[in-house]
Amino acid sequence: MSDHLVAGLEPPYYTVVFTSHLVENADGYGETAKRMAELVKQVPGFLGYESARTPGGLGITVGYFRDEEAIAAWRANLEHQGAQRHGRAEWYRRYSVHIGKVERSYDFERE
Amino acid sequence: MSDHLVAGLEPPYYTVVFTSHLVENADGYGETAKRMAELVKQVPGFLGYESARTPGGLGITVGYFRDEEAIAAWRANLEHQGAQRHGRAEWYRRYSVHIGKVERSYDFERE
Repeated sequence: MSDHLVAGLEPPYYTVVFTSHLVENADGYGETAKRMAELVKQVPGFLGYESARTPGGLGITVGYFRDEEAIAAWRANLEHQGAQRHGRAEWYRRYSVHIGKVERSYDFERE
Repeated sequence: MSDHLVAGLEPPYYTVVFTSHLVENADGYGETAKRMAELVKQVPGFLGYESARTPGGLGITVGYFRDEEAIAAWRANLEHQGAQRHGRAEWYRRYSVHIGKVERSYDFERE
């Protein structure tokens, strides 16, 4: 889980919204998720990510990418592809992915 | 919090990613969040939302809208505007909003 809030990005950029429900015994999921969170940082054009999971419920991860090329590079990563296959075979009950081009964003920070 | 996964939408549509950290004593936040979750359903072109908050940490809410007009209608709602002002004055330590146009999405469901 990331406790870091991604802010202050300059449009245009892309959000990849990944929402999921896990199966009840998703053994090994946490380790692989942690590894992917490290691996994605090596992708040129990766800008950050955020992740929250309500205990026992829905998980939402948002990845931020500079352009389509960065998203394609992450999709093409072989270790990532292996983790995705494993996820479909063992860990995920459902998931959805929504890839959006961001033209507008804003931030608030308490003084 | 929504435990429902929004899936099977037909692009194009819009994702509004709202990420936040609350102050420590965000009294009344939960009730208002619940009220907003009901209120937004009345907006024509609202397609659904998902919300997850890691205990004590980052909250992520994703709203799905058919078009810019639907987002503008929600932004123009006076009760929503009041809740936003209250949030900036009392509840939020930080937040960010990223509005993306979705051209591509996919879903997985275990059989």
